[in-house]
Amino acid sequence: MSLKVYYDLMSQPARAVLLFLKKNSIEHTPVLIDLRRRAHLTDEFRQVNHFQRVPAIEDSGFCLSESAAILRYLCRRFPCPDHWYPKDLQARARIDQYLDWQHLNTRLNAALLFQTLVIRPRATGQPVDQQRADFYRQELAGTLDHLENFFLRDTPYLAADRISIADLLAACELEQPTACGFSYSAESHPRLLAWMGRVKADLAPHFEEAHRILYMVRDRYNSRQLDTGSGGGPAPRI
Amino acid sequence: MSLKVYYDLMSQPARAVLLFLKKNSIEHTPVLIDLRRRAHLTDEFRQVNHFQRVPAIEDSGFCLSESAAILRYLCRRFPCPDHWYPKDLQARARIDQYLDWQHLNTRLNAALLFQTLVIRPRATGQPVDQQRADFYRQELAGTLDHLENFFLRDTPYLAADRISIADLLAACELEQPTACGFSYSAESHPRLLAWMGRVKADLAPHFEEAHRILYMVRDRYNSRQLDTGSGGGPAPRI
Repeated sequence: MSLKVYYDLMSQPARAVLLFLKKNSIEHTPVLIDLRRRAHLTDEFRQVNHFQRVPAIEDSGFCLSESAAILRYLCRRFPCPDHWYPKDLQARARIDQYLDWQHLNTRLNAALLFQTLVIRPRATGQPVDQQRADFYRQELAGTLDHLENFFLRDTPYLAADRISIADLLAACELEQPTACGFSYSAESHPRLLAWMGRVKADLAPHFEEAHRILYMVRDRYNSRQLDTGSGGGPAPRI
Repeated sequence: MSLKVYYDLMSQPARAVLLFLKKNSIEHTPVLIDLRRRAHLTDEFRQVNHFQRVPAIEDSGFCLSESAAILRYLCRRFPCPDHWYPKDLQARARIDQYLDWQHLNTRLNAALLFQTLVIRPRATGQPVDQQRADFYRQELAGTLDHLENFFLRDTPYLAADRISIADLLAACELEQPTACGFSYSAESHPRLLAWMGRVKADLAPHFEEAHRILYMVRDRYNSRQLDTGSGGGPAPRI
């Protein structure tokens, strides 16, 4: 098999790449890079990805990193349905617009909230920096508003009438902080909630399967919150 | 003329879009959105770009924001030479890889260093936050190392043998902090310095012209540094 995919299921963009491959029945060899065991920091993996992050792919010796670049490449490289990354000029541009926007928005805010509430306390043994958590919660609330009021204003998916690589990446980013009490409601974000339902249905059963480790983290997080009583129950909805 | 480009020459990605249009002789109507007069915050401009930032384009009623998405769109929309965004699968993927990587690296660090040293003190009347400036100077140093040792390791341009939209965007980002004492040397970053020379030569005379306001800011910054003696001369090379 010529296509190798370097991943860890704890990485949300790695999950997006794996989901894309499974949904489109693209033959590949998954290679686990165990982040907790620091497998991404080896010299061997640096030959695949200079930046030592997952996901990365190797296609018959051609190495590529950056999840959005990988997803664009896979759409061109394999015979995938057009809706993932349409050839139509404006439809593709709208998807690119989301993919470029998300780096400093959905990607950054969802990832940093999760890091602050889950990764950092576990790695350092220190309590959660609540001020920092509040900041990213607020930033993520702004991101949700933009998704609700701009990207989903006129279309059932982020940039089109059918699912695209923009939705795939966004859904995996937004599912990540649900493992640390983050949620949104039908009252505040009806379009976003309906969109997430559509994306999950489109990607079933792969979506649940790709998130199984994240959901274990979520269950542990919730039971710990109940044990300690910290936060006084579920995090506030935004 | 059907293509409108909303810009301010103080915005580095807006300069990149204008440079692309001029270099490729693409007919367009430039529309100045004066950032200092807060013209980007009007309801009128919000109809063009929900995020109220420049650059943005309007092509016969189709509105698009995000500089990398705009550049990709222009390459497909107009008959531009292939080297800007090659049709070859791997060549295009390498350009996408840089364009996706730069958001949290070249873009973020160069812009935030400039904001910290120039924009913020001017907007608030407060002195420069030197700790913050040092942090971004250090982050930008790391970005330069990645450009030198990965993106320019095997090719004269960031992702290929000829100039692409990746080089265009990167050169405009890296020129911005030269207006606040930032520089790099042939000793520390020989490939990067040679690359910048190549890009400027490829884009002459448009590069100088697009940066004329930035160069005025640079001259004022340098004379102010000399007047006050702050920093004891030019900023250290990294």
